[in-house]
Amino acid sequence: MSLESQSRLSNRCREIDIDILVKDGHVLTLDRERAAYNPGYVAIKGGKIVAVGPVEENVAQYRAKCEINASNCLVLPGFVNTHTHAAMALLRGYADDMNLQEWLFNHIFPAEAKCMNEESVYWGTRIAIAEMIRNGITTFSDGYFFTGSVSRAVKECGIRAVVGQGVLDYPTPDCPDPEKSMTLASNFLDKYGGYSPRVYPSIFCHSPYTCSKRTLAKMKELTREHKALFQIHLSETEREVEEFEDKHKTRPTFYLRDLGILDKDTLVAHAVWLNKKEIEVLKKHHACVSHVVSSNMKLASGVAPLPRFLEANLAVGIGTDGCASNNRLDLLRDIDLAAKLHKLWQGDATVVPAMRLVEMITLKGAACIGLGERIGSIESDKLADITILSLNKPHLTPLYDPYSHLVYCARGSDVRDVIVGGEIIMRNRKILAFDEQETIEKVSRITGNLMKI
Amino acid sequence: MSLESQSRLSNRCREIDIDILVKDGHVLTLDRERAAYNPGYVAIKGGKIVAVGPVEENVAQYRAKCEINASNCLVLPGFVNTHTHAAMALLRGYADDMNLQEWLFNHIFPAEAKCMNEESVYWGTRIAIAEMIRNGITTFSDGYFFTGSVSRAVKECGIRAVVGQGVLDYPTPDCPDPEKSMTLASNFLDKYGGYSPRVYPSIFCHSPYTCSKRTLAKMKELTREHKALFQIHLSETEREVEEFEDKHKTRPTFYLRDLGILDKDTLVAHAVWLNKKEIEVLKKHHACVSHVVSSNMKLASGVAPLPRFLEANLAVGIGTDGCASNNRLDLLRDIDLAAKLHKLWQGDATVVPAMRLVEMITLKGAACIGLGERIGSIESDKLADITILSLNKPHLTPLYDPYSHLVYCARGSDVRDVIVGGEIIMRNRKILAFDEQETIEKVSRITGNLMKI
Repeated sequence: MSLESQSRLSNRCREIDIDILVKDGHVLTLDRERAAYNPGYVAIKGGKIVAVGPVEENVAQYRAKCEINASNCLVLPGFVNTHTHAAMALLRGYADDMNLQEWLFNHIFPAEAKCMNEESVYWGTRIAIAEMIRNGITTFSDGYFFTGSVSRAVKECGIRAVVGQGVLDYPTPDCPDPEKSMTLASNFLDKYGGYSPRVYPSIFCHSPYTCSKRTLAKMKELTREHKALFQIHLSETEREVEEFEDKHKTRPTFYLRDLGILDKDTLVAHAVWLNKKEIEVLKKHHACVSHVVSSNMKLASGVAPLPRFLEANLAVGIGTDGCASNNRLDLLRDIDLAAKLHKLWQGDATVVPAMRLVEMITLKGAACIGLGERIGSIESDKLADITILSLNKPHLTPLYDPYSHLVYCARGSDVRDVIVGGEIIMRNRKILAFDEQETIEKVSRITGNLMKI
Repeated sequence: MSLESQSRLSNRCREIDIDILVKDGHVLTLDRERAAYNPGYVAIKGGKIVAVGPVEENVAQYRAKCEINASNCLVLPGFVNTHTHAAMALLRGYADDMNLQEWLFNHIFPAEAKCMNEESVYWGTRIAIAEMIRNGITTFSDGYFFTGSVSRAVKECGIRAVVGQGVLDYPTPDCPDPEKSMTLASNFLDKYGGYSPRVYPSIFCHSPYTCSKRTLAKMKELTREHKALFQIHLSETEREVEEFEDKHKTRPTFYLRDLGILDKDTLVAHAVWLNKKEIEVLKKHHACVSHVVSSNMKLASGVAPLPRFLEANLAVGIGTDGCASNNRLDLLRDIDLAAKLHKLWQGDATVVPAMRLVEMITLKGAACIGLGERIGSIESDKLADITILSLNKPHLTPLYDPYSHLVYCARGSDVRDVIVGGEIIMRNRKILAFDEQETIEKVSRITGNLMKI
């Protein structure tokens, strides 16, 4: 090195002020090249990532308000849960080992009618957020009722979320009169648009079989106006698709296409019973898919053709679904499940390899919910949503391949620190953003009381 | 209460000396009536359970050297892992996303030949034991090589294990000359019979296709003499069964029956490709089955007919398999996987309900490996193997049904304390029985060095 460049370097030392320096970790950027730096660093300022790279390069130039030592840790983009109904955490384990019709109509719908209100949805969402943060999830895409309460919980708890107002042409907990559901949805988008930089309002039309053509078309129009995500359940069970075809003489995917619903800002959840042509239609219109593997297995709904989705290069993320059907919000557990299920189903252990699945809970998941340019990878100018996972554990020893470890060995409880938008919301497994114990106690009380009714 | 009985009670107060009193937990005994006590207690003395019941009844009479407050905890029989190759933890994540033949012959066998020796098997077993203890497993049934090293690790680490000497008619890491493998096995049973009260020597014949008739018959005879468990892999892959039938003109299960191998002291692992008649034969001869669901999925081997096994009332436990194919030793994760897989496979969400699965990792698992009268439930006179799981967590809130929670929500990291034979080997997630950090570092060094060769 020349004297001149040495002096330039020394002048530059500690000259750049930043908020947070994550240092000495094994950084998996999930950028276009899938670059990894070990040891690597991430520099964060003003809520954004300002630099990422190997530690030996330039790290000395940063003067950080807060340094996080990530040695013996994986540093990852925060995980993205593309489909859930967070407040249903209140019904976690309330009804299991039942077939879908029995489960939904005789247990879940009556329990929801009984227990869901502004207050309970707020606390149900909070307990779900606590669980998600602990599992390294920094963003989730939700569909539920009382979306004001959901938004408030998201804002207060520091996580990021697409908050979808549930719309059905049937009475719902927050809208007993179906005539008013579209107005409710419209008001929600208007009111919560600028509510918090971490809340992205959205519409969640329940399904093609519970919403009329008019409702679907109107709601898609509304989301277009607001540049918001349109979410919908699609072809979850075989029976539902058969009944739909009987009634409408077309497959649900074609029906949505013909209504102009399918585009890059539409996320279809489940997508289990899709034929080849339907997959082509999704691809042609750039619609996104949430693969909800755990819930589909537990309710015996079927196996979504994930390998076909990946071949078609669809934007596919993983969704946990709500706790009434999963019963947990842990993407690391779901990618293990997805890996194993599809290998078995195809009779081919090479399909859906580990890296594809890690992509699905980071950059692909982000793309699915319309946030692909803002989150999902560790790159300059993206929002600083980071999950740090500790490796110093028997079940993660030895380490040959970090992607394999994430899918087949790691679990949510290995997550040590979580940063959202440059704010540290969990540190050394202590949630800093809100009172977790209060939330646990409140939810126990609410569910204890409600279930007695 | 009469004055007389009051005085009797008061006289009895604190009059019984015990070693450990586990108090105020939600005790799931897994006894014949599946009794649960909440709040309940377990009294332990001399390595055994001396009493269990509701707290209000008799608890005051015990004077314990050590009291464990288990309020807001589940108290369970220690979990039983019925099939593993513990030392293969050294190859955790070494080769994934490959079909079985490629994986086994081109990666695992060469790596084993390269890296397995007395020293490495000792450390590999230790890291596996650390992981198992952390996941609430108090007993495992092993099949591997260098069984002296395995036994030493088991004895030093405080866990309980059936240690199976691997036998094949091919060169193995501990027996390059197959002619000597039967002598090696015989010597192992002789030498390690009284080695430790927590080590139960056993023979693990690799499979009907890698051991000759003579080897199988001799080894079964030997285990009979020693009252030891005979273990064997059975019908793991379709290809293996097809090749076997081509060669022997019979199905592997019938072949084992005809050799007199099948009885209540024989445990068959995998049992994926079994027809109805083979299940009947297992039932008739009271043979036991280890269901190895995670490994069977990851290697795309197939789906064992678990619901048929349960209908036939076979003794069925869950096995994790070794870390080269799972890649973790966590029965709570595997029962979630089993629940979901079989519901999906049968197209019926009611099959294999939660309680059946909890039974499989406790009392049924214990029965499978010949220890049904000693462990597997919390009952007087059984050995005091206890797992205590903390419930004060967002992902376990609310709680409607503890069995559902164990299968669908809980994870190994929720285990707080582990007791084996009346000895507390983990307390507040700190392993007391041995130096875990030393083990992690040693294994990282061993695998780092070996893989460079």
